[in-house]
Amino acid sequence: MKEHELVRELAEQNASKIVMVVADGLGGLPMQLDGKTELETAATPNLDRLAARGTCGSSVPVLPGITPGSGPGHLGLFGYDPLEFKIGRGALEATGIGFELGPDDVAARGNFCTLDAAGTIADRRAGRIPSEESFKVVERLQAVKIAGVETFVKPVKEHRFVVVFRGKGLDGRVADTDPQAVGVAPLDPLPVDPAAKKTAEVAKEFVRQARAILANEPKANGMVLRGFAAKPALPSYEELYGLRAAAIAVYPMYKGLAQLVGMKLVGKAQTLDEQIDELAKCWNDYDFFFLHFKYTDSTGEDGAFDQKVKRIEELDRVIPRIEALKPDVLIVTGDHSTPSRLKSHSWHPVPTLLAADTCRPDGLSRFSERDCLRGGFGIFPAKHLMLLAMAHAQRFGKYGA
Amino acid sequence: MKEHELVRELAEQNASKIVMVVADGLGGLPMQLDGKTELETAATPNLDRLAARGTCGSSVPVLPGITPGSGPGHLGLFGYDPLEFKIGRGALEATGIGFELGPDDVAARGNFCTLDAAGTIADRRAGRIPSEESFKVVERLQAVKIAGVETFVKPVKEHRFVVVFRGKGLDGRVADTDPQAVGVAPLDPLPVDPAAKKTAEVAKEFVRQARAILANEPKANGMVLRGFAAKPALPSYEELYGLRAAAIAVYPMYKGLAQLVGMKLVGKAQTLDEQIDELAKCWNDYDFFFLHFKYTDSTGEDGAFDQKVKRIEELDRVIPRIEALKPDVLIVTGDHSTPSRLKSHSWHPVPTLLAADTCRPDGLSRFSERDCLRGGFGIFPAKHLMLLAMAHAQRFGKYGA
Repeated sequence: MKEHELVRELAEQNASKIVMVVADGLGGLPMQLDGKTELETAATPNLDRLAARGTCGSSVPVLPGITPGSGPGHLGLFGYDPLEFKIGRGALEATGIGFELGPDDVAARGNFCTLDAAGTIADRRAGRIPSEESFKVVERLQAVKIAGVETFVKPVKEHRFVVVFRGKGLDGRVADTDPQAVGVAPLDPLPVDPAAKKTAEVAKEFVRQARAILANEPKANGMVLRGFAAKPALPSYEELYGLRAAAIAVYPMYKGLAQLVGMKLVGKAQTLDEQIDELAKCWNDYDFFFLHFKYTDSTGEDGAFDQKVKRIEELDRVIPRIEALKPDVLIVTGDHSTPSRLKSHSWHPVPTLLAADTCRPDGLSRFSERDCLRGGFGIFPAKHLMLLAMAHAQRFGKYGA
Repeated sequence: MKEHELVRELAEQNASKIVMVVADGLGGLPMQLDGKTELETAATPNLDRLAARGTCGSSVPVLPGITPGSGPGHLGLFGYDPLEFKIGRGALEATGIGFELGPDDVAARGNFCTLDAAGTIADRRAGRIPSEESFKVVERLQAVKIAGVETFVKPVKEHRFVVVFRGKGLDGRVADTDPQAVGVAPLDPLPVDPAAKKTAEVAKEFVRQARAILANEPKANGMVLRGFAAKPALPSYEELYGLRAAAIAVYPMYKGLAQLVGMKLVGKAQTLDEQIDELAKCWNDYDFFFLHFKYTDSTGEDGAFDQKVKRIEELDRVIPRIEALKPDVLIVTGDHSTPSRLKSHSWHPVPTLLAADTCRPDGLSRFSERDCLRGGFGIFPAKHLMLLAMAHAQRFGKYGA
């Protein structure tokens, strides 16, 4: 990625502090024609004041029209081209439950299924086994022992779990074992690339032992494995930007994504106010702070327009507490839009603001989707936001003489 | 093209309908400072209403400052990077006269010339031979027979014609035979790549037989061949987007361009109203409809500002008929600008609107060059328009988890 070459070449050290507040799924839509979006409806005096002081824009998470998941959405904000840097499904699932992947790990998503006497799949979701039951089944799988490889089995939800193999020479290029049908047996794990031969054998041995352990389980006596993936090779924040980065997040997925780029997890905050407490506490120990706010997304996913409005107002109210710390650069953005009207992530650009003493005024006095279209950053790829953050923190030297 | 990998990965099926109206050469310029463009002058109540409901932007056909021909202009709108996907001159000329190229075809543009007794070029345009005469000359060339190859000779206009060779193992990499000067003989067709050796020999044999047939022609007794090209390898709309696509165009060039990406030609409409009739008739058989309107370009090329204004108003009047079909996504754009003041294609961005229920309002109430600059799509590459069309038709899955 040519931007990364440039970042490495130009990054400099100073005492500046950068705060990036990610309001997940921030962007929205009006519920009806001529209506207002959630952000346009919310009373946001503090964000509006920041917009007037700073520069705004509309960030495009991946490409026009492309709706990102949380992985690509955050990678973009962190400055990694989400089309170039990909987090494999297994690695993302492990990350999402808070499992910190190491360099020798390969993770896969597991689904329990019910096998009949002939060994073919009778139920692809193990009778929709409830989490309480499947967690016990996962516990029994801790008994699997494979020579030369450490094995971690972690529950996710209902019939879903994660398995991580840790050992030298493992490789994620193993095919799914899910035949995507009932009445047939699960497939053997097969290498897609010769380099993954050992990993495929390890996975096969795991399944063999697991089947023996689970032979008498009424529902979850079999399994399929999908999305084998190693930890993605992402340069760390420290290496790339020279930033000591802290992540203050409540949910495992976002903690995991932050860890993938080398951020340190700080505190155990459960509320937004507690997150700001943590921010204040670790202020002197880091240069960059990623603060994740989940509820603008979850309310959007629920189609709860009024609740999303309230969550935006909740975020607005803590802004002065962040400002009191005197960050050199304060960014408020989202990883994608989640319009309540669509009850899902969407492709629409994300309102984004950056406040710093070096901002050129763009004449806005309100932080909203419509205003951000007229902002000084225009409509820009999310992956460029970190370049602007570094610039406004005056952490970039000049390019060329 | 990385966008195409993404499209293939994310495209999904549903029952949505997308209509793309291409007003050829739509964008314009004022005739004098402080004046209005053609589109700004036209009364366009229907387009204005769509602009208010939808999202607008300014599309850049190739790159800023680059003026496209019809080929690259349309490829961009269809979602093919016009710098990556190229239509060779011979293939475009054949396409332009409605010749449907097959996978075993190589086409070249032919120019009749007048040769003197020594066999050198005396007149590069065969005495500006009128079409009536040259069409008869072309007719005589149907007698050429080459073993193992089918030969098609088609008139274009005046001294220009097209020749298509059809056979296994042909290749377009053959050099022009035009010496670009009088007083010298036409060059022999020579392969530029060893793979084109057979094609060069076929072309040489064609010229040999043709010269014999035309030996007594007073003007057109010789020829030069230029722009040898096979059919470009474009993934089809069906393969790429999963869209059954129909093209409703009057002129052969646009029918040909649509066929190159696998669209089906529908109807034999001659007027815009007949085009809408055809659209309504085939509504249930396709997912995507390309409707081409030529006269915004031809009036611009003529420098007929007032006529171009009238043609835009003619287009505006049929919009309600299209809306009555209830397309999920309705796009109005152009393949490039053709300002009457310049009497030619130009590089200026093209006003573009997309109306769908999933549009985020951008505060516009008028469809014009000036308004589109402030639209929600901003200034964007034309090749991304189909990504937005697919997104608003809700035909894309999420990228990453």
